[in-house]
Amino acid sequence: MVRYKAIIAYDGTNFNGFQKQPNGRTVQEEVEKTLQKMANGKEITVFGSGRTDAGVHAIGQVIHFDYPEERPLERMRFALDTQSPEDIAVRQVEIVSEEFHARYLVKEKTYQFRVDIGKPRSPFRRHYASYYPYPLDLGKIQRALPDLLGTHDFTSFCASGSSIEDKVRTIYEAKMEVNETKDELLFTFRGNGFLYKMIRILVGTLLKIGNGRLPEDSIPAIIAKKDRNAAGPTAHPEGLYLYEVKYE
Amino acid sequence: MVRYKAIIAYDGTNFNGFQKQPNGRTVQEEVEKTLQKMANGKEITVFGSGRTDAGVHAIGQVIHFDYPEERPLERMRFALDTQSPEDIAVRQVEIVSEEFHARYLVKEKTYQFRVDIGKPRSPFRRHYASYYPYPLDLGKIQRALPDLLGTHDFTSFCASGSSIEDKVRTIYEAKMEVNETKDELLFTFRGNGFLYKMIRILVGTLLKIGNGRLPEDSIPAIIAKKDRNAAGPTAHPEGLYLYEVKYE
Repeated sequence: MVRYKAIIAYDGTNFNGFQKQPNGRTVQEEVEKTLQKMANGKEITVFGSGRTDAGVHAIGQVIHFDYPEERPLERMRFALDTQSPEDIAVRQVEIVSEEFHARYLVKEKTYQFRVDIGKPRSPFRRHYASYYPYPLDLGKIQRALPDLLGTHDFTSFCASGSSIEDKVRTIYEAKMEVNETKDELLFTFRGNGFLYKMIRILVGTLLKIGNGRLPEDSIPAIIAKKDRNAAGPTAHPEGLYLYEVKYE
Repeated sequence: MVRYKAIIAYDGTNFNGFQKQPNGRTVQEEVEKTLQKMANGKEITVFGSGRTDAGVHAIGQVIHFDYPEERPLERMRFALDTQSPEDIAVRQVEIVSEEFHARYLVKEKTYQFRVDIGKPRSPFRRHYASYYPYPLDLGKIQRALPDLLGTHDFTSFCASGSSIEDKVRTIYEAKMEVNETKDELLFTFRGNGFLYKMIRILVGTLLKIGNGRLPEDSIPAIIAKKDRNAAGPTAHPEGLYLYEVKYE
């Protein structure tokens, strides 16, 4: 058995998330089906760096799997890419040691979140950016972003019902860019890990600050409360992209 | 009756083209349904600047229609936009004289065509750019483009079976840009009008030149032949965008 690591991209629109489950089409299931075809019917399990929810996209999701034989890398990548459904792309494949694990050894993750602020909403972005048609003071968002940096207990930014106990995470980078035509925002968050729905709650809170319904200096107090109700709403999944995963 | 002109954008993926027809969902039919709802059941006919084929997109399609009463412009735009399906957006609405006609008075049209040249094909562009995975010498395409400019009989670049007799058209602008990440080409063609499938045949021919299967100076000879078989293949519809329509 040879352990492969792969970087994959997917359009999350028609998936019920990454992780295999009884209902709906999932990324894991589709990649496992492709590998099974390639391996003459042998069942192969795919491990991802983490789940993504229904509608959430990936530009750089990382997976690993054990394959019965060693194949030339570009041939492996091409076969996996072209035999997978067209909403999954295989960007890179490499052979890794048996100690590598796509989920347990994650050092850093980067997410992006796109917000369409144009009028009207672009029909081309309806599945690829969340829509926010209300007034926004972008300066307020820019001034609030640095308050997210560093190591904090992010309980307030974690969807209630999450079973994870340790909610301390470190955010290394939190930025917002505006595109040339000024009708789209691109948020980037880089950290050592993120809680369930954390990016979407961060964006929902930042938009509420930009809209003036929360003060621009409210992030430290929201973090201190350790209460999901203190933060803003959860932004829609179609704006979210798992951009990059880095390992030890 | 008040004549309105509107600029609309649509994602052509789930439409069987612009023009109403017995089979499949069309843009004209959807906008007419919306207008009928807004006008308390009165049937209203929508006229477009021209058809677009199945899968073809529009950023700036122009339509006109006669509406039973005058309404404030932004209210009219907002109602038409939000009551239309989400793959149609209404960008602008204005009141025009009864002499205005979206199709007959066109002075100039601009089309864009996007080609995904990345490896692998981007899952996010699969409905929004044509895919070309073969080697391309972009210099050859750049050097061929000026040969398209000016007034020519473009019979060689018209789909066979077209019933239009006069195939003389003038191209004012023909350019190709490469995006920052060098995985996408953007063609722009501006002219006084284009024949059936002309942009797609132009792009198919230019890609054939870039791939070395036609000489870079072959455009004048292809035009001179007045024979569809002399040109390259018809590029796929998902890369094509009606970008702008200008009037007298």
